[in-house]
Amino acid sequence: MGTTQLETVPEPKYWHLKTVLSEALDSEFSVGEILPNERDLAARFGVARATLRQALEQLELEGRLQRRRGVGTTVAPPRMGVAVGTEQHSWPGTAGDAWQPADCTAAVPPAGIAGLLGTDTDTQVHTVRRSRVNDGQPVAAELLYVPETSVPGLTAPDAPSGAARARAVLRELQRLELEGQDRAVELGSARVEDARELDRLPGAPVLVVTTRFFAGGRTAAVSVATYRADTCRLTFGDPDGVVIHHGAGAPSLDTSPEPVT
Amino acid sequence: MGTTQLETVPEPKYWHLKTVLSEALDSEFSVGEILPNERDLAARFGVARATLRQALEQLELEGRLQRRRGVGTTVAPPRMGVAVGTEQHSWPGTAGDAWQPADCTAAVPPAGIAGLLGTDTDTQVHTVRRSRVNDGQPVAAELLYVPETSVPGLTAPDAPSGAARARAVLRELQRLELEGQDRAVELGSARVEDARELDRLPGAPVLVVTTRFFAGGRTAAVSVATYRADTCRLTFGDPDGVVIHHGAGAPSLDTSPEPVT
Repeated sequence: MGTTQLETVPEPKYWHLKTVLSEALDSEFSVGEILPNERDLAARFGVARATLRQALEQLELEGRLQRRRGVGTTVAPPRMGVAVGTEQHSWPGTAGDAWQPADCTAAVPPAGIAGLLGTDTDTQVHTVRRSRVNDGQPVAAELLYVPETSVPGLTAPDAPSGAARARAVLRELQRLELEGQDRAVELGSARVEDARELDRLPGAPVLVVTTRFFAGGRTAAVSVATYRADTCRLTFGDPDGVVIHHGAGAPSLDTSPEPVT
Repeated sequence: MGTTQLETVPEPKYWHLKTVLSEALDSEFSVGEILPNERDLAARFGVARATLRQALEQLELEGRLQRRRGVGTTVAPPRMGVAVGTEQHSWPGTAGDAWQPADCTAAVPPAGIAGLLGTDTDTQVHTVRRSRVNDGQPVAAELLYVPETSVPGLTAPDAPSGAARARAVLRELQRLELEGQDRAVELGSARVEDARELDRLPGAPVLVVTTRFFAGGRTAAVSVATYRADTCRLTFGDPDGVVIHHGAGAPSLDTSPEPVT
């Protein structure tokens, strides 16, 4: 009966095309290669342009294709494994942190962030902007929200913003004893500023990681990190430092199974 | 100069519309309400249908809108926080597990999974299908791949498949000492079977969580769990059980900041 049920749910046409295209990518194309234009592809597979576009969008979601401004659609390399949260219990900016501070301003955070921080909705907080680069490619942009009360020792700035100011805020934050942290991961779309930094178009799908840092019995800081969803696979290592064993022939940690397709 | 640079990157028209629509959702619509049709919306905001559709797609990515078969586009409730990996070091199917076993078959896994398990590419493994329901809503579907060698004590089945078989495989797996596990989260698109189970269209964006379970010095099982990206926010709790403190006025754990928009 299970089989019958399966058969009565027909696959949409673009889904079938996606499977066929996926096989063609494996056998005929190499990473970085530019795909033929939509008209030629539609003609080759005997489908309407709209069907082709749906299939290409699926392959882009799954990280098989990349659409790049001024280049066209190219075959994507395998996604990079980007470590998130292997370093439990450490403040942003401590040794080994993969992020680079870029700027710091005082700004009123979005209402949701103010709620998490317990600040009034019109209170400015230190807003540190950091970026993360892997193998020369921008992979993520972060806004770290730090209320005044978390960094009371911060002196009046020589410069009110900039990377030096960002480092000063991080340094002050590290004076607090970190009691814990938690994370949430969800799908979002790249804001205009993040998109520019990540070399994507605004609205491109991103993975949004929200981290709360707890100190002194409250939320002392909130980080909202935006990772490119096309090129990144977020990895969460075992925090107890258990050595990871590989079975015979198993790929390295950086090789992922294909996303569910 | 930073400001000048910002100003020279104009916001796309659909992005501006998205912001306006988002405000309209807050002020004029309630959760579950059906949006007017595209023609009426485009007329109201004085934009082309294509622009409107792009803006609606953005809002869907961000979890603000839901497109439902046979219903139309509705205002989405806030995303649910779904705990992933708060229970470190426990096998699937142990007490407190949120997953329900549905079926078990013997099947050759995808090449990427076989690589992780270190099995030959034509070797069948126990493939347990489980589902996860939150508040009566399907939130995730899982395939758990368990090689024969991980469950050597499994007896010849009375039934070759079904939920009873799935439970038997999980029971046998729990005899092994779990040495560690790691996880990766990435963006994917719902396969036809998963889409049906999750009440979505095939190809809908999903968050794919791949978990490797280590025992006996190798990867003893691999789970590929597909979460609805529209309704779910995956939460990763502090594994050391640190009590989470809330600042005054802070929302509960289940209230997320808005995704980056």
